[in-house]
Formats: sequence, structure tokens, C-alpha cells
Amino acid sequence: MTTTAAVNPTQQRTAEVVADIFGVINERLVRHSVTYPEYQAAKAWLIKVGEAGEWPLLLDVFFEHTIEKLASERRQGSSGCIEGPYYVPGAPELSSPATLPQRPDEPGDVLVFTGTVRDLDGNPLPGSVVDIWQADALGYYSQFHPDPPQWNLRANVTTGADGRFEITTVVPAPYEIPKEGPTGQLIRAAGWHHWRPAHLHMMVRAQGCRTLTSQLFFAGGEYVDEDIASAVKPELTLELAHLGDGRYAAEYDFTLDPA
Amino acid sequence: MTTTAAVNPTQQRTAEVVADIFGVINERLVRHSVTYPEYQAAKAWLIKVGEAGEWPLLLDVFFEHTIEKLASERRQGSSGCIEGPYYVPGAPELSSPATLPQRPDEPGDVLVFTGTVRDLDGNPLPGSVVDIWQADALGYYSQFHPDPPQWNLRANVTTGADGRFEITTVVPAPYEIPKEGPTGQLIRAAGWHHWRPAHLHMMVRAQGCRTLTSQLFFAGGEYVDEDIASAVKPELTLELAHLGDGRYAAEYDFTLDPA
Repeated sequence: MTTTAAVNPTQQRTAEVVADIFGVINERLVRHSVTYPEYQAAKAWLIKVGEAGEWPLLLDVFFEHTIEKLASERRQGSSGCIEGPYYVPGAPELSSPATLPQRPDEPGDVLVFTGTVRDLDGNPLPGSVVDIWQADALGYYSQFHPDPPQWNLRANVTTGADGRFEITTVVPAPYEIPKEGPTGQLIRAAGWHHWRPAHLHMMVRAQGCRTLTSQLFFAGGEYVDEDIASAVKPELTLELAHLGDGRYAAEYDFTLDPA
Repeated sequence: MTTTAAVNPTQQRTAEVVADIFGVINERLVRHSVTYPEYQAAKAWLIKVGEAGEWPLLLDVFFEHTIEKLASERRQGSSGCIEGPYYVPGAPELSSPATLPQRPDEPGDVLVFTGTVRDLDGNPLPGSVVDIWQADALGYYSQFHPDPPQWNLRANVTTGADGRFEITTVVPAPYEIPKEGPTGQLIRAAGWHHWRPAHLHMMVRAQGCRTLTSQLFFAGGEYVDEDIASAVKPELTLELAHLGDGRYAAEYDFTLDPA
């Protein structure tokens, strides 16, 4: 790569990061003696990633966990987790205690998810919002699969006067990332699996606070130790308490950094 | 990344190379503390590379030189060089001595390019083909710029009984890679330049021989020492001899490996 003098810090940053990443990719191409047929296959595959609209999926599966961990290091409150490609803003606004929008015959076990949103000093944050989204018990996200209705298992839940929330939903299933497109093809070609462990997604917002994007996982669940998206953190892994009658409870308190 | 046991050598190779490259990219994202806004900008840019149809351009500029050097190490004959994204098969078939298809008022200095095609034992290869393509004196490739006619400065030239060729053309100009698309935007954002030194492209084919894809450069020309595509090799850099009257000569002998 040919460099001319970078004339401002943004240019210098771009030049440093891009030259380093391109350089180390070239170094690894040499280390593995990558051939022209392999290079041509990679080129055709990169073209397909774009045609299939899978750049968000591919990047969020393989790289967002790194960006997120770096961002979490700059936080004093709760750890965050990757957003992933399935967030949709504008979900229905509900007040705690709330039941997430769902079908009359929504499959799966009932989950009662409770907790409190607080600031760094431990003060509860009434009126904060838990913007939650999740796969259903079959592993499908509404708006990304034809079956679930538009806002199925998605809502903005406002906490009560004590900063507490109680959200009744269903236990999500492990989620298999799309297999038909080029991301799935790569994973299959490498002999890996396509699974993420069951998880809840949320963005937690409160006035004067930095929004927290996170995920919560369930201890002992399938794929918790081998998430294809490398996003599981021990502190985000909850115990599921069995309440009987196919009903479960999980609790987690969110601590938000100041804005 | 989650690995399961690779079940065949191709899968194992894919897993090793992809895990290593993805892994080292993640390592460098950490080293540079890449932020979410930078990650989102990279995501938007990768999407644009596909939309602009620039994967071949981007990869050929920044990575093909590595693949090509690895391939050349497996050769005993002449060094190769990157193909680049502008080759078009099916150019007119001419016999040496030949003048490349050009406009009546083709701009630029005349170049008489001569040489011999031989096998590894030094035997001339009559009937071998120099499939040559190049930018014109304004830096434009036919079929990739609206001005030059379809086969301008492109031909398949067959060598004579002595394996020799004499090709009359024009001295190409340095070539500025497309600046309007995402590849050009990246280069500008990093404060680099968009130039390749003037060069001739060729594929040299002969029965029983491995086809050689190469480029030839001109000693002392602009950008020879700072090719944005990192493709210049000393042994591919020719002296241009001035014949007088704006006419130049350059000579290069090709040695082909067995198929």
C-alpha cells in the first residue's frame, strides 16, 4: 500500500487501521499459501455476501463481539452485549408489569423476567425503558420470519416507580442463524455449526444515562459454551428458576452509566 | 468462533484459513480499540463495495499481489504479475508483426514492443500467443471507459516461426483506479493516492505450457515505486529506448513453464 502523508487525525487513523488490517490479511494469505482458485472463490463469496444482504449478519456474527467488548470496557455499569442484526425500533410501549405481544397459542414455556434498573449510585430509575426483543420458542424473530406477527415478542416496557420491571414472555429457543445464504455456506464449508444459545435482547434507556445494549443467556442451555457469535459472557448468564407448570423465572438488574 | 471436528481436508483448510484471518482481524480491532461508530462505518462501506460492483477492483488492488507472488514462486519461468480487473477474453487475433487496434488519431507516443517466447530449455515457441491489453495514453481501458472503441489496444498476437513478436502500440499512461466508488473513497479517506504506474498487461499462452499472466512497467516512470496495487517487480520493469520522432522501443522475453 502506498502512503502519502496523512494530513489530519481522522485520515491518519483510517490509514493506520486499514493498512494494518489489510497488511495482516496479506501476511496470513502468505502463511497459508492461499492459491488463485481459493482467492477467486473468496472473491465470488464476498460478492454473494453483498447480494444476499448479509453484511450485517456476517459482521455481527464474527466481529461485533470484539467491538462490543471494547465498548463495555469503557463502562462502569452492567456489561453490554452485541446488538445483532434483528433489532427493530418502534415496538409497542407497555408499562411494567407487562406481557410481551404474542399469539394466543404462543408456543413454549412461560418466562417471568424481573429486575430493577439503577444508576451507578444504586438509585432506582423509574420511567426507564427496557426495549426487549427475542426469538420465539421455535427460534424465529418477528419481522425476520414470515410466521410471527409484526411485533411478536417485542416491546418497550417502562419500569415502575421503584425502577422495577416484570415482563412475562416465553423462554426463547436457541437460534440458528440463516443457513441458506453465504454466511451459512461459509460456516458449513468450515465444518462449524450455525447456533446461538437461547437469549433475550434488550436496550435499556433512561434519561441522563447511556443506553445499554445487552443480551441475557440461560445457564446450562445448549450452545452457551459454543455460541457461533462468541457473545456469551458469564455475567450475562442467568439461572432459570422453575416455578412449576412450565413456568420459569429469571432476574437481572441493569446498572446504567451516566450519558 | 465455534469449531466442530472438520471431517475432510477441504473443510479443515477452510476452517483453518478463515478462523485465522477472522481471528487476526479481531485481534487488530482490539489493538486499535475500534469503536462502534467506526464498526458501523466499515459495515456501511462493505455494503457499498458490493453495490458498486467493486469487489474485483478492491481485492485486485489490495490483495491479488500476494496471491500472485505465491503463485510465481511455484514457477521456474518468467515472473508473473496480477491480472487486475480489466482483462476481456476474445480480443482480435493478429499475427506478429502486429499493430494493436487503435483509433486513427490514437493519442500518445508509439511503442514498439518486441521479444521472444521460449520454453524453460530456451527453445523458441512459434505459434504462441501474446494476449495483450493496456490503458491508452490518457489512462483509459477500452470496455471500461466510454471513449475507446471495443477492442482498442487489445489483441491476441501470434508469434512467428522464431517465437518472436513485434507489437506496435502506444506508450500507456499511468492509470488512476476509479475514484468515485467505495474503493476510491477508502483510498482518499486514508490519504493515499489512486495511481498505478504505466504498464502493459499480457497473458502468454503456448501449447503444452502453463499460461503466464504478467505486466510490464517502465523504469523511471511515475508511481513505479509507489504502485497502489503493490504489483511492480524489478524484473518486470523495462527500459524504454527512444527511437526518435516520439517513437519508443521496449523488449522482453517470456519463458513459459510446462503445463
